Amino acid sequence: MRPSCRSGSSPQRSNAVSLRDLLVLAGDYPLPITPGIVAGCEGAGEVVATGPGAVRVRVGDRVMPTVFPDWIDGPFGLERAAQLGGTRNGTLAEYAVVPEEALVPIPEHLSYEEAAALPLTAVTAWHALTGSRPPLPGQTVVALGSGGVSLAVIQLAALAGARVIVTTSDVAKAERLRALGAHEVIDRRARPRWHEAVRELTDGRGADLVVDVAGTLEESLRSVAIGGDVAFVGYRTSATAAPRTALDARVLFASGARVRGIAVGSRAQFTALTQALATGRTQPVLGRVFPFTEAVAALRHQERGDGFGKVILTHA
Amino acid sequence: MRPSCRSGSSPQRSNAVSLRDLLVLAGDYPLPITPGIVAGCEGAGEVVATGPGAVRVRVGDRVMPTVFPDWIDGPFGLERAAQLGGTRNGTLAEYAVVPEEALVPIPEHLSYEEAAALPLTAVTAWHALTGSRPPLPGQTVVALGSGGVSLAVIQLAALAGARVIVTTSDVAKAERLRALGAHEVIDRRARPRWHEAVRELTDGRGADLVVDVAGTLEESLRSVAIGGDVAFVGYRTSATAAPRTALDARVLFASGARVRGIAVGSRAQFTALTQALATGRTQPVLGRVFPFTEAVAALRHQERGDGFGKVILTHA
Amino acid sequence: MRPSCRSGSSPQRSNAVSLRDLLVLAGDYPLPITPGIVAGCEGAGEVVATGPGAVRVRVGDRVMPTVFPDWIDGPFGLERAAQLGGTRNGTLAEYAVVPEEALVPIPEHLSYEEAAALPLTAVTAWHALTGSRPPLPGQTVVALGSGGVSLAVIQLAALAGARVIVTTSDVAKAERLRALGAHEVIDRRARPRWHEAVRELTDGRGADLVVDVAGTLEESLRSVAIGGDVAFVGYRTSATAAPRTALDARVLFASGARVRGIAVGSRAQFTALTQALATGRTQPVLGRVFPFTEAVAALRHQERGDGFGKVILTHA
Amino acid sequence: MRPSCRSGSSPQRSNAVSLRDLLVLAGDYPLPITPGIVAGCEGAGEVVATGPGAVRVRVGDRVMPTVFPDWIDGPFGLERAAQLGGTRNGTLAEYAVVPEEALVPIPEHLSYEEAAALPLTAVTAWHALTGSRPPLPGQTVVALGSGGVSLAVIQLAALAGARVIVTTSDVAKAERLRALGAHEVIDRRARPRWHEAVRELTDGRGADLVVDVAGTLEESLRSVAIGGDVAFVGYRTSATAAPRTALDARVLFASGARVRGIAVGSRAQFTALTQALATGRTQPVLGRVFPFTEAVAALRHQERGDGFGKVILTHA
Repeated sequence: MRPSCRSGSSPQRSNAVSLRDLLVLAGDYPLPITPGIVAGCEGAGEVVATGPGAVRVRVGDRVMPTVFPDWIDGPFGLERAAQLGGTRNGTLAEYAVVPEEALVPIPEHLSYEEAAALPLTAVTAWHALTGSRPPLPGQTVVALGSGGVSLAVIQLAALAGARVIVTTSDVAKAERLRALGAHEVIDRRARPRWHEAVRELTDGRGADLVVDVAGTLEESLRSVAIGGDVAFVGYRTSATAAPRTALDARVLFASGARVRGIAVGSRAQFTALTQALATGRTQPVLGRVFPFTEAVAALRHQERGDGFGKVILTHA
Repeated sequence: MRPSCRSGSSPQRSNAVSLRDLLVLAGDYPLPITPGIVAGCEGAGEVVATGPGAVRVRVGDRVMPTVFPDWIDGPFGLERAAQLGGTRNGTLAEYAVVPEEALVPIPEHLSYEEAAALPLTAVTAWHALTGSRPPLPGQTVVALGSGGVSLAVIQLAALAGARVIVTTSDVAKAERLRALGAHEVIDRRARPRWHEAVRELTDGRGADLVVDVAGTLEESLRSVAIGGDVAFVGYRTSATAAPRTALDARVLFASGARVRGIAVGSRAQFTALTQALATGRTQPVLGRVFPFTEAVAALRHQERGDGFGKVILTHA
Repeated sequence: MRPSCRSGSSPQRSNAVSLRDLLVLAGDYPLPITPGIVAGCEGAGEVVATGPGAVRVRVGDRVMPTVFPDWIDGPFGLERAAQLGGTRNGTLAEYAVVPEEALVPIPEHLSYEEAAALPLTAVTAWHALTGSRPPLPGQTVVALGSGGVSLAVIQLAALAGARVIVTTSDVAKAERLRALGAHEVIDRRARPRWHEAVRELTDGRGADLVVDVAGTLEESLRSVAIGGDVAFVGYRTSATAAPRTALDARVLFASGARVRGIAVGSRAQFTALTQALATGRTQPVLGRVFPFTEAVAALRHQERGDGFGKVILTHA
Repeated sequence: MRPSCRSGSSPQRSNAVSLRDLLVLAGDYPLPITPGIVAGCEGAGEVVATGPGAVRVRVGDRVMPTVFPDWIDGPFGLERAAQLGGTRNGTLAEYAVVPEEALVPIPEHLSYEEAAALPLTAVTAWHALTGSRPPLPGQTVVALGSGGVSLAVIQLAALAGARVIVTTSDVAKAERLRALGAHEVIDRRARPRWHEAVRELTDGRGADLVVDVAGTLEESLRSVAIGGDVAFVGYRTSATAAPRTALDARVLFASGARVRGIAVGSRAQFTALTQALATGRTQPVLGRVFPFTEAVAALRHQERGDGFGKVILTHA
């Protein structure tokens, strides 16, 4: 337990695992990892003890930690780069000690399992949607596939009144995607040049925002309207697939769009997300749920990548 | 017919009337009015003829005129201040000649009657909501009463995923307000200090945006969060009521909020509104519908101010 | 000394006094004041000791405290409202204990006396200029009179390439105002309707930003362009003058401008200010300098209000 | 003369040539070019005749055309993509017919030769600087080399109070670059990894804005601060050099920055630029001046690319 003046010690009622955790464990993560650190950055629990001077949380509060505990508000910066399960002990534990400044209350309508799905995945989706120019109702947002971030993007973009277009290589998922809020589903197998389908669906204009989780930046840039945004969340879709990283700058230039890399978000963004979920009575999509003692199995399930919804761990 | 190169001549299938029209006719409008001008600024119709060089519209198109025909995009300015039913012939006519640059297509799901409700009222609501910092999902928007702009604010804010609080002095309307998207309805008779009710509903924080259509700026400023916005649409609620105009600047200062006057919007804003309505399948709220020949009765009905929804005129 | 993990104890090499301090001491300040608190919110000093765990400052650093020690970044909020010389011990002391998070390094080119002029006055000016839509080069900024905030506005707006218009009721000051960066000086005695002079100087368009330190909001709103900004810093020009607080909301509406109250700024804003001053080699304008033991005389001098530049106290 | 209601016919007193013109003439321009079009997009002249209904210009006015005559205000879009010397007759002519909506007055302090340097080059620089988040005073802007856009970026960024860093491969130009406003000049021959030099000059933080005119996006992204901006103006530095277009998306992601392509600007942006130049009494940097009859020689001079300042043509 580090000598923190104000801290919240919380039993982890639930955790989630993600591609990020696989990359960390595989030693293939682009940011520095402190050896011996407790892994995991998503979790939810109950405060069981507080340090002296704690004012933001009380014993019994239902809380989630922020992935970047020092990033409270404003833009990201190097002095805010400490991260759970990276350079600070993470959430794959029965108890965690977290500065109270780095805790966000769980919305009442969400269970611990659902809350565990938020800190990395849903916050990233929120940042991708709202970090630059949030979509206005009626603007078009494109999500790619059925990974955790994309599912959250669909839900949140639909909540914001946007028109949501989703690509999928598994049309069997189309109905579930529509149920989450997708207005249009593009079958990537039938339309490998899916950016053309986006153009068709937008009268040639292109989407206002594409959230690229797969590093398919050239297709994303061909899908986006002049002056639109591409939120670039990641260039790997699994821990084993090769990263997609080649980009012809002419495509970027010709698009007239803005591209920016997105990495999770601040506590202020996380808090705003919880208000959105509470107002929309929105629940994150959960996939398989494992007991905490089977964390390794959960990670292997995540690695296969054929699920739908967040992989969750519960503490009995 | 003015010597316009590119114009759309459209038969007015429907018109709407508003408080603005009453103020114009009463000679009590704050902007200059050209004597003898055709009144009315809201309408919808079909293009029956185009001038030479027209490229944006074709005969048969269903269109609505913009209230400020020279305001295409960007911020408002004096050189864009010409207005229908003010300094240019307006819409209370069987046919109108309008520059094609000043026409917006009617969304497919809307009738002419519904479309006639948009150019002034719904565009003003859209501008009030999105002109400064559009509400994010989960942020709180306050609308005042059941006038045309407020009804549109409720619908559009709900479409944007905001939490919508509405005040009313007629609780019999509460159910209709909730059906439009209001999450909370404050009874102004029971709570004359309605700003306190807004504070209670927001954990003391205040609303993110108040759309003030009544000139109750001190109450609005007491309702809004530090750093929030008050969109100030008007200070008169009827053509006969005295304007509410006194404001103690200390209340403005203490609020830490931003106040800005709102007047309709640009063609770009109108177009964005139609995309929002199309995506949400949203229909404006219509009140009584009169035949065009009973325009005077329609205006008198508007003047009584006890209706719910836009007052519409139809051309047989 | 409060039980802070990370703190900087600094001898105050210099302090400044302001109208705010006079209002606090007169019991006429609009925010709560904790009885018995050490007064003063502007100062500059050297770190002489640090608490355990300090990482941002070291002994010997030249630093200034932020007026709101809990407001690091992002927008203001109630949870960030603690203030020096208000609810926390302030700077009118030989030593002060301040959390290290609330300290900003002094730019190299500034002395302690100059640095003491920044935390309240220059940060407020910076926030007024940059908090909403920072002026672009060539846009017009209006400052009112020769108080501390206005002098800083003139310097910073000129540094930003803006065209600066200043009003003054003492034309003898015109040359000094021009030397600071004013492009135009309006003699308020010759032009009591000074807003007309602003219109004339801007081809009728009005200024892009008016920083109102005097509560003359109606004149400010008549001076500002449609869509422009009025940053509202204060409605009192001295501790004895009556506040100017009456505002006709019709003037606000007709202006088409945005008005917002401004109160100091965050640490992030303060840090950005120091970068601006360092780049421009800009020095704040100092007025009379008193020894710390003559603080009462300094406050009385401030009260007379006929000086030019910040009133400074130095510790021998 | 096309059947325009409102037009300004202007004798071209001066023209400028640019890399763009060379690419157009070489058939290597990425946008469509109408065969037989009059080339050239930069010019300045005097109005000698107006069409019926002209209200914005009068005979005798000194004016410059906008490169995109249909782009008045707001964001760019396909419906605003017509361009002089591309799909409409351009400026390399003795007289040009231009819609009056597409003309901007020449600031009084500029000659026709200087004005001819603005429509493409300086407007692009202005858009690159101010189109996303304009630099605040004290923020750092990086310009690359001594091409026309970079020289304008240096001047305008310095005018905005930014700290300006310039790279050059010809240190003999360093003094001229400093005289234009550069605070720091990086010798690219001595520091081929110039992005490291930018980091050193910014305490490791990186620049707030890099204006990339050379397609060196990876270096630009390594130079920019987390959350900063890269304005991407072009990927070719001469008509013969191969375009630089390869970009590793991992570098983009890791930067945390935003990249956006920039193409000239709207009339509103051009007008704002002229206000900035007038306030700063700033004159564009002119290089060699040729008589109009030697346009081919001027283009060849431009092609060699070893000049400093805009290449100008004058009409006797």
